Amino acid sequence: MTGDLGPDASAVAFPLGGIGTGNVSLGARGELRDWELTGEPAKDRTLPFSFFAICADTGDGAPIARVLQSRLQPPHTGDQGYYAGELAGLPRLASSTMRGEYPFAHISFRDESLPVTVALRAFTPLVPLDADASAFPATVLRYLVVNPTAEPVEVSIAGSLANPVGIAGYDLFHFPTYEGRPRNTYRDAGVVRGIHFDSDLPTDSLLFGSASLTTPDAQSSAKPQWVYGFWQDGAQLFWDEFRTSGRLTAEERETLEPGVGPERLTKLRVGSLAVTHRIDPGETSVFEFRLSWYFPNRPKGWLGNIVHADPNAGSVVRKHYATRFADAWDVAVRFDAELDRLETATAQFHEALFESSLPEEVVDAVSSTLTVARSTTCFRLEDGTFAAWEGSFDSHGSCEGTCTHVWNYAQSLAYLFPELERDARRTEFLLETRPDGHMSFRTNRIFGGPQWDFHPAVDGQLGTVIRLYREWRFSGDDAFLAEVWEGASAALEFAFTHWDSDGDNVLDSQKHNTYDIEFHGADSLSNSVFFAALLAGAEMAERLGHACTAARWRDAARTGAERMDALLFNGEYYEQRLDGAPDGGAGLRYQYGTGVLSDQLLGQFLAHVVGLGHVLPRDHVRSAIRAVFQHNFRTSLADHHSVQRTYALNDEAGLLLCSWPRGGRPRIPFVYSDEVWTGIEYQVASHLIYEGLVDEGLTIVRAVRDRHDGHNRNPWNEVECGNHYARSLASWGLLLALSGFRYDAVSRQLEFAPAQPGPFSCFFSTGSAWGRVAIDEEVVELSVDHGSLVLDRLIVAGRDAAPTGATLPGLALGSGSRFRFSLATN
Amino acid sequence: MTGDLGPDASAVAFPLGGIGTGNVSLGARGELRDWELTGEPAKDRTLPFSFFAICADTGDGAPIARVLQSRLQPPHTGDQGYYAGELAGLPRLASSTMRGEYPFAHISFRDESLPVTVALRAFTPLVPLDADASAFPATVLRYLVVNPTAEPVEVSIAGSLANPVGIAGYDLFHFPTYEGRPRNTYRDAGVVRGIHFDSDLPTDSLLFGSASLTTPDAQSSAKPQWVYGFWQDGAQLFWDEFRTSGRLTAEERETLEPGVGPERLTKLRVGSLAVTHRIDPGETSVFEFRLSWYFPNRPKGWLGNIVHADPNAGSVVRKHYATRFADAWDVAVRFDAELDRLETATAQFHEALFESSLPEEVVDAVSSTLTVARSTTCFRLEDGTFAAWEGSFDSHGSCEGTCTHVWNYAQSLAYLFPELERDARRTEFLLETRPDGHMSFRTNRIFGGPQWDFHPAVDGQLGTVIRLYREWRFSGDDAFLAEVWEGASAALEFAFTHWDSDGDNVLDSQKHNTYDIEFHGADSLSNSVFFAALLAGAEMAERLGHACTAARWRDAARTGAERMDALLFNGEYYEQRLDGAPDGGAGLRYQYGTGVLSDQLLGQFLAHVVGLGHVLPRDHVRSAIRAVFQHNFRTSLADHHSVQRTYALNDEAGLLLCSWPRGGRPRIPFVYSDEVWTGIEYQVASHLIYEGLVDEGLTIVRAVRDRHDGHNRNPWNEVECGNHYARSLASWGLLLALSGFRYDAVSRQLEFAPAQPGPFSCFFSTGSAWGRVAIDEEVVELSVDHGSLVLDRLIVAGRDAAPTGATLPGLALGSGSRFRFSLATN
Repeated sequence: MTGDLGPDASAVAFPLGGIGTGNVSLGARGELRDWELTGEPAKDRTLPFSFFAICADTGDGAPIARVLQSRLQPPHTGDQGYYAGELAGLPRLASSTMRGEYPFAHISFRDESLPVTVALRAFTPLVPLDADASAFPATVLRYLVVNPTAEPVEVSIAGSLANPVGIAGYDLFHFPTYEGRPRNTYRDAGVVRGIHFDSDLPTDSLLFGSASLTTPDAQSSAKPQWVYGFWQDGAQLFWDEFRTSGRLTAEERETLEPGVGPERLTKLRVGSLAVTHRIDPGETSVFEFRLSWYFPNRPKGWLGNIVHADPNAGSVVRKHYATRFADAWDVAVRFDAELDRLETATAQFHEALFESSLPEEVVDAVSSTLTVARSTTCFRLEDGTFAAWEGSFDSHGSCEGTCTHVWNYAQSLAYLFPELERDARRTEFLLETRPDGHMSFRTNRIFGGPQWDFHPAVDGQLGTVIRLYREWRFSGDDAFLAEVWEGASAALEFAFTHWDSDGDNVLDSQKHNTYDIEFHGADSLSNSVFFAALLAGAEMAERLGHACTAARWRDAARTGAERMDALLFNGEYYEQRLDGAPDGGAGLRYQYGTGVLSDQLLGQFLAHVVGLGHVLPRDHVRSAIRAVFQHNFRTSLADHHSVQRTYALNDEAGLLLCSWPRGGRPRIPFVYSDEVWTGIEYQVASHLIYEGLVDEGLTIVRAVRDRHDGHNRNPWNEVECGNHYARSLASWGLLLALSGFRYDAVSRQLEFAPAQPGPFSCFFSTGSAWGRVAIDEEVVELSVDHGSLVLDRLIVAGRDAAPTGATLPGLALGSGSRFRFSLATN
Repeated sequence: MTGDLGPDASAVAFPLGGIGTGNVSLGARGELRDWELTGEPAKDRTLPFSFFAICADTGDGAPIARVLQSRLQPPHTGDQGYYAGELAGLPRLASSTMRGEYPFAHISFRDESLPVTVALRAFTPLVPLDADASAFPATVLRYLVVNPTAEPVEVSIAGSLANPVGIAGYDLFHFPTYEGRPRNTYRDAGVVRGIHFDSDLPTDSLLFGSASLTTPDAQSSAKPQWVYGFWQDGAQLFWDEFRTSGRLTAEERETLEPGVGPERLTKLRVGSLAVTHRIDPGETSVFEFRLSWYFPNRPKGWLGNIVHADPNAGSVVRKHYATRFADAWDVAVRFDAELDRLETATAQFHEALFESSLPEEVVDAVSSTLTVARSTTCFRLEDGTFAAWEGSFDSHGSCEGTCTHVWNYAQSLAYLFPELERDARRTEFLLETRPDGHMSFRTNRIFGGPQWDFHPAVDGQLGTVIRLYREWRFSGDDAFLAEVWEGASAALEFAFTHWDSDGDNVLDSQKHNTYDIEFHGADSLSNSVFFAALLAGAEMAERLGHACTAARWRDAARTGAERMDALLFNGEYYEQRLDGAPDGGAGLRYQYGTGVLSDQLLGQFLAHVVGLGHVLPRDHVRSAIRAVFQHNFRTSLADHHSVQRTYALNDEAGLLLCSWPRGGRPRIPFVYSDEVWTGIEYQVASHLIYEGLVDEGLTIVRAVRDRHDGHNRNPWNEVECGNHYARSLASWGLLLALSGFRYDAVSRQLEFAPAQPGPFSCFFSTGSAWGRVAIDEEVVELSVDHGSLVLDRLIVAGRDAAPTGATLPGLALGSGSRFRFSLATN
C-alpha cells in the first residue's frame, strides 16, 4: 500500500498536470522526471539542468547549498556516468520521505548539514464536475522552510528550467536538439514574475509552444539565461553565484566562446528564478513556484500502433486547452488568479476521499488511478472532443481510438467528469455506429478519417449502451439521450442479428472481445453484458416512448438469461460452451471452455453500477463471483506458469484472468488467460463487494496496492498494454460498491447502502453537485461542497431518509449547504 | 569489491565473447542480457525467448520445471509489464549467488522446490599472447547438476534462442523486426549437434551472419523451430512439452494461423535444444551448451560521434574473425575441437592471477578491466588491424579512432596481446603521422578515409613514443622498430618545433590533451610525458645507430626537466604556469593553475612502467604524487560540488582529477576537473606504489572496486565517456608496480621487485611466454605455462638470481618448464 516512500522508491513518478495537458512527474527523491509537457508519452525523458536548489546562509561560515532532492539512488550505470545535464555531482540532501495522496504530493527532506528543514507540496488542481478547472497545463511547487534554530537564516530557493520548446531529439550526451531557436525572457506581470520560455517556431509547428517558470513572490531574482557553450560554463557560473549568494543576476554575455555564433553551438537555453527570504527563529516561510506550459498542437490523426488510416495526420489540430489560453504566460497569470479557489476545491475533494471511512486501500486505488484521466492516455481536441488511448507506451500512445471494450470497465470519469463520458458516447453512437448497428470499437472519425474496418467488439459495443444509461441517469439529460438514441438502439439490435445465430437470445456466434481474440459459442461475459444492455436499453426506450421495444428487450433479457444460466452454469460458475461453434469448437484456439473466467460476470457488475439489479439468478451470481475469487486469486505467483505478459510475479498476489480447477485447460487458451490485470481485479473486487463478499473484494484490492508500493511499481501508474491504462479506472466501482451510491437525476433520487457496518462517510457526486455524505446509525448528513442539486428522495440502506427542518421532495441543496436527515423506521 | 553477488546485483553484466567478436553478457540472476553478438554496442538489447530452463523428474508427482534464473528483481516497471518475450511469468529459482573471476563466471542457484542443485559456469577462453585463441565468437554455458537425494532424478536442461540474424529494430512490443528471412536448422556434426540460425540475407549485408546453439552431448533432443504466429502459441507449446517431459520434438507445423503466409506474420524464429540425463543419487552431471556466432561484416568507416569524413562507410569490411571461420557452425565445430586446450590455458591464466599474492582488489581491477579488450570497444579488421573506440555508448561507439591520449594509459594489452599494441603503433606512425610529425590522434586512414584535420594531442602523441619503446623492449623486434622509426622520430621532434615556444625544452605552447581542451603555458602533465618520450626515444635512436640524436634528446630531457622542475614545483607538487600564455593566461578558460592535477606525473608513471627511472627529481616526484593522494582522494563525495559528469557520488570515495587546496581555482577550470575517472585512479595508484606509497595506492584501488560492487555499478564495466572505457586498462599498471615486473627482450633480462614484503607470487608474461613467478625470501620459482623464452639474466629486488642446476645466460625455458633460482648475496 502506498505509505511513506523513501528515496529508494525508484518506481515513483507522481504525475502533475491536468486533463489533456501533458505532464511532468515528481519522483520520490523530489526530482522532476518524465517530462511529457507536450502531451506525447515520454517516460524517462529528461530535461537537463531542470531542478530546484536551496541555499541557506546563517551568516556563520559559508552558505550551505544543496540540490532540493535527496541523494541519487543506485544503480549508477549510465554509459557516461551521469550526464552533465543531470548535475549529479552537486550535493543533495541526505534523505527524504514522500507521501502522495493524489492530487497532492508532499515530500519532507532531511539533512543535518542544512540549518533549516524543507518540505515540498506539489499539485495540479482537480475539481470534480469541472473538467476545465482540472485541465490547467500547470503545477504548483511550494517549498515550506522552517528555521528551527535560534538565529535568523537567509534562505534562497532557485528553480532552473531548460527551455522545453522545440525539442526534436536528444544527442549522444543526452542534451536536447531543437527545431527553431529557443529564447528565454524575464517577465513581470505584477501578480507573478519569472522566466518565459518560447521559440521562433511557427505557430502551426507540432513543436510550437511555450513554458513559464513563475513565482508570486516579489522577493525574487533571476538569471533568465545561463551562459551557453561547448562545456559546462553556464552551470558553473549559475551554481557558484547561487551557492555563494543565494541571489541571481542576469549574465552579461550569452556565451564565453570566442567568435562563435549561437547557431554553431547548442540551442539549449536554461533559466533560473530564485526567491530569497530571511526566516526568523522558529518561523516557517513559503517559497512558491509555478510551472505552466502551452503546447497547443497535435497531429490530426492517431498515428497509432493499430494502424488506422490517418488521412489528415499531416495537419495539426489544436488541443482543447489551447482555446482557453494564449500561451504559457497567460496560463501563469490566470492560474494565479484562480489558484485560491481551485486549491480550496481540490483540498475539499481530497479531504472527502482521504478522510472518508473507506478502507485505506480503496482510497488509494480510487485516487491513484485518477492519474489516467490526467495522463498522456487522455486528451481533448479543440472542439472539446474527449478521446483516449487504451494506455501510453513509454514513448507512444498505446492502441488508439477510445477503445470501447477497454473503456468499458472505467467508472471514475462518469462520476467526476461526466461531460467527458457523454462526449465519448456521442462519438460512439453518432460517428462510429453504422446504420446496421456495427460499431467501430476504435474511433477514427473524430479526426475526419474513415471508420475502422474491423470486427465489432461484443463487450465494448453492448457496454456502450449500459454506459449511455449511466450517463443519462446521472445527468437526467433527455435531450442527450434522444440525440444518440438511433445509434444506441441500432448497436443493441446488432446483437440479435449478428451474434445470436439461432434466435434464442443467447449470443453464440464469433464474438471479438477485450482479449483481442474471438470467443465462439456461448459465454457469460458477452451474454451478461448483453442482458444488462437489454435492460438498460429497455429503460431508455421506455423513456423515449418506445414501449414495445422496451418490452421486447426486457423479454429477451429474461429468456436469454434463463437459457444461458441453464446452458453455462455448472453448479459453481459459468463456463463457456463451444457446442454451437464450428466442429463443436475442435481446433479453435483462444477459448476458455471449462475455465473460471474472472470476467464471466462483467455485465452483472455493470448492471449493479447503474442500478439494474441482478440480470442472472442471484445465487448463481454469488456462487460464480465467489468461485472467481476462490480459484483465480493467488496469494503467491511463485509457482504460476505463464508464457504471456507479466504484471504480477514472484511472491506477489494477484487475480488471474482465468484458471481451470476442474481441468479442461485448452492446449492454447485465450491469449491473456494467465495474466493479472488491475482493471479486472477492481471489477471483480467491486462485484464481490456488491454481492456482500466484502473481505474477498478488499483482499484483491490490497494485493493490487501492495504490488504498487513505489519499489516494485509506481503507485500512480497501473500498467496493462501501456502506462496509465484506462481499464484501471474500474477502481471507482469500489467506491460505488462500498457506498452503495446511486444517483438518478431523472427521478431526483439519491441512494446509499454502505457495504460495511459502522459509521460511514464518503465523497459523493451527482451530475450537478459534489460533496460528502456521513451516515451514523439513523443519522445522515449531506454536505454539498460545490454545485447544487434538488432531491426528491434520499434512500439509505433501503430506508427513506427525512431532512431535519426541511421537506422532500424538492429539497434544494446549494453549494456549501449541509443537511441532516434521519432514517425512517421501517 | 566484487564478492558473492546476489540476484539483486542488478548492475551486473559479465561479458562473454572474444576479442573483436561482440558479446552476450551474463546477469547476476543467471540471465543472458545485452545481446551484442553483432559487435555493435547494444546495452540492454533483449532477445526474446532466449534463456535456459531445467526440468527435474523424480517420478513422484509432476516434474518441476523452472527457468534457470533466479527471480526477477524490482522495479517491475515496463510499459507493458514484462513483455511476452521475456517470459517473466514462468517460475524461476528462489535465489542465486554469482561469483565472477574474469574470464570465468560461476552462478549457484538455490530453490527448495527443485530436487537437485544446479550451478552454471560460463566463459570464453582467454589465452595470453594468443589473440586468435582469445577471439572465439563463442561461449561455453556449462550447467552442473547434483542429485543430493536418495533416488535417481531425470533432469533436462533446455536452451532456447531467437534467431539473431538480420535484426533491424524492435517493435513496440519489443519483438525484433528483421531484414531477410531468418531460418533455423537442426544439424549434427557428430562432435556437436544443435540448432543453426541463419538467414537468406546476402553475404555483403551488414546484418549477414549466423549463430549456433550446440551441445557435445548425444543425449539431446531439439525443437529447431517453435510454432510462430500472432500470439504466444509457440512459447506455450514449447513450455508445456518441456515441463511435462523434459524432451523436445520438432513441431509438425510452422504456424497454427490458418491461411497466413510467413511473410505476413512475425519473422521471429525460436529454437530450443535440450539435454537429458538420469542422475543417480549423490552424482553430479554436466549439461554443456555452447553458443557461437558469426557476424562477419562491419561498415568500412567509423560513423562516429567525432564526425570523421567516412568516404567508404557505405561499403562493408570484414572482421578479422571472419577470415578464420566459415560461419557460426564452423565456429562451433572448431571451438569444440580446441576447447580442452583453450580451457586449460584459460584456467592456468585465471589461476596465475587469482591465486597470486596480489591484493584481492588488485586482482579484481586487473582482471575485470580486461573485458575492455573483449567488448564492443575494440575490434580487428580483416587484415588484422587492431582498432578501438575510446569506449562504447549504450548503442553506439564512443569517440572513434583508437584515440592516442586515452589509450595512452592502457597497459594490459601490451603485456597480454602485444601484437595488438604493435599494430596500433604501426597505425599511428605509418598512417597517421604527417612528415612534419603532426600525428592525428584519431585514426581514420585504417578505413581508407582522409587523415583527421584537428590539433595534435601532446600527451597522446608523445605517449606513443614511450609505448613504442615498451613494445620494442617487450618483443625485442628490431625490424618493427626500424619499420616505424621515421614516424616516431618525427612525432617526437614535433614537440620541439610546435609545443616549445622558446626552445628551452619545456613545452609551453597551446597543447591539446586528454581533457579535450588546450593547456596553455607550462604544465607537468605534458612535460613529464615529453621527458619520458625523449628518454625512450634516445634508447631507440641509439639502437638504430643515431647516437647524436640520442644524445640530443637525452640532453633535452635533462635540461627540460631541470627547468620545468624549477618553474612548476611549489615545494609540494607541480603547478601549471600560465606566464608564457597570451596575456599571462588572463581570460583563458579550462586551465588548472595552482591546482593539484592528479595526472601531473603521467609521464613519470609511463617512464616507470618501461623502466626509464625518474625523469624528474625523485623527492619532488614522491612529494607530488603523495600530494595528489592527500588532496584529491576523498573518502566521501557527499559534499563535493561538481557541475560536470559524475562517476562517483554520495558517500562513495574517489580520486578527483584536480583540487585547489591552496586556493586559486579558476572561475571555469578545465572541463573534467571535478570528475573521478577509474583510469586516472589506476594510473595514480600504480604510481604511488612505484614510489613506495603502497597503502595509498591500494586505498584508491579499493575505492574504485567498492564503487563497482554489482549494485551501484557493473564490476566488469568501467565507464568514462562510454562503457568499457579504454583508460581503465591502466589497471595492469598495478600488477606491474606491485611486482616490479619488467621484461627486456632486447637484453633477455627479466626483473621483479615486489612492492610488498612477504611471499610473492604472480602472473608474468614476456613477448613469447607466460606463466607464474613465486618469490619467497631467497628462493625464486619461474613456471612457464605457455610459450618459451631464453633468459640471460633474472633480477629480483635488484639482486641477480641464479638457476638451480642450470646456468645463465642463455637459459631456455620451454612450455611447462619450471625453474628454481636463488638470489645472490649482495
